[in-house]
Amino acid sequence: MYLKALERLTDAFNMLPSVGRKSAERMAYAVLEMDETSVKEFSNALLNVKTRIHRCPICGNLTENEICEICSEPSRDKSTLLVVSYPKDVFAFEKTGEYKGLYHVLNGVISISKGRGIKELNIPSLLERINSSNIKEVVIATNPTIEGETTALYISKLLEKTNVKVTRIAYGVPMGGNLDYADAITLTKALQGRTKI
Amino acid sequence: MYLKALERLTDAFNMLPSVGRKSAERMAYAVLEMDETSVKEFSNALLNVKTRIHRCPICGNLTENEICEICSEPSRDKSTLLVVSYPKDVFAFEKTGEYKGLYHVLNGVISISKGRGIKELNIPSLLERINSSNIKEVVIATNPTIEGETTALYISKLLEKTNVKVTRIAYGVPMGGNLDYADAITLTKALQGRTKI
Repeated sequence: MYLKALERLTDAFNMLPSVGRKSAERMAYAVLEMDETSVKEFSNALLNVKTRIHRCPICGNLTENEICEICSEPSRDKSTLLVVSYPKDVFAFEKTGEYKGLYHVLNGVISISKGRGIKELNIPSLLERINSSNIKEVVIATNPTIEGETTALYISKLLEKTNVKVTRIAYGVPMGGNLDYADAITLTKALQGRTKI
Repeated sequence: MYLKALERLTDAFNMLPSVGRKSAERMAYAVLEMDETSVKEFSNALLNVKTRIHRCPICGNLTENEICEICSEPSRDKSTLLVVSYPKDVFAFEKTGEYKGLYHVLNGVISISKGRGIKELNIPSLLERINSSNIKEVVIATNPTIEGETTALYISKLLEKTNVKVTRIAYGVPMGGNLDYADAITLTKALQGRTKI
């Protein structure tokens, strides 16, 4: 190929998850066939995702507002906190429509192999929330992987001395899987069957 | 989902060929995780594809220069013209490294079902090229589909009265397939086994 612009766009698409060289090439061609307005919108959509979305200072979830929609919703049950690893896990639980409490997004998991420790996680703000507000239960919903389990165990140990009840979602989600692949019913079941750690 | 910016980017990725809703979502999240420079580059790459790339006035192929690299290359065999439907077919043949002649890109095929007739194709310029320059052979390499065959037949009929030899690439390419999926050896074989229409 000798069209620099097309090659650069192919490179960009190639950086996305599970997009191979051939798929990236086809995508770049598809962009070439789009009308100019659509391409401009696409280009702006990319920039807007970075400029408009930031983390909620309370729960760490992604938001376009100052404080995220869930934290600022008065009808939410403020005594329960669902601790998840990533913002996409919040979306997955919200899709079930079954959970009415609040969330806390760790923004990662403890991973020895990747050298990611507790310092990189949103844990200090979790402790602060528990100390300063009337939280009665913390449900830990990290992925059912080794790293997710380690993180869950670490948090449960950390909260042992506090008065909050620490629970873990039931193993309705298949071991080794990813939370955002699970369907709404599985997630609901996992939530209902939560057990005390 | 309630993040407008993320939803809009998901919509944009969803427009690309063979990208479903779930894949588009994952791509949008991946963009969120990228550093700002990469996202800006991605965004610019999209715009550049539309602004920098245009059609070569001689052959109809895509180019970033005034006249495309193949048409402006003096060592090319100017007596042979390979007629293809799309610019990506030019890339496919160029990858074989076997073809040394020039190209003519129709920019489509005759399609009754899609209401695309000969008026939308780059055919007048093909006739003009044949009349004004010393072309001895026209090799038709449209896709081996009904529409591709119809287009090939139409062009061969059109060129019957001229002195050029009109040939068709051999059916080394599987019927019903797409040219840009074929590997270099298959394309080379198809080129070598071309027959007179």
